[in-house]
Amino acid sequence: MFKAHITITLRPSILDPQGKASHHALGELGFDSVSSVRIGKFVEMDLEAGSRDEALKVAEQACSQLLSNPVMEDYHIELNEVVVS
Amino acid sequence: MFKAHITITLRPSILDPQGKASHHALGELGFDSVSSVRIGKFVEMDLEAGSRDEALKVAEQACSQLLSNPVMEDYHIELNEVVVS
Repeated sequence: MFKAHITITLRPSILDPQGKASHHALGELGFDSVSSVRIGKFVEMDLEAGSRDEALKVAEQACSQLLSNPVMEDYHIELNEVVVS
Repeated sequence: MFKAHITITLRPSILDPQGKASHHALGELGFDSVSSVRIGKFVEMDLEAGSRDEALKVAEQACSQLLSNPVMEDYHIELNEVVVS
């Protein structure tokens, strides 16, 4: 079994109102040293595959077809094989 | 400057309707090999701090006071120092 840890982030050129609001709220709480906050999604996906390459292909297709918005977002996949004994 | 990459995930015992919906949608699209999907948040935070320990403390406080819900969520912080030359 493979475990994919996927981070989906807004492209740098896209405004991030949720991040801006969190940054502002942190400032109100006294966190003056924080200079930027951007918020994305984190997806943990378990999948069965015969090989690492196959697992990566499935995770990439899931990202491009459903999980991310390819116009506004980038995704990064970290894949780990889990050996069940 | 430090860059914190924070992942905020629902605790394993907490139901995740957004993850369930994504899993179901992936099944409809033919991704039969995916056995579980759980969705959390990913926060990229830039902060100024005199040391790594100080930066970690600020990031932890930001997580516990604002970014995460300590009753339902766990957070994990990855900290990198960015040297601006």
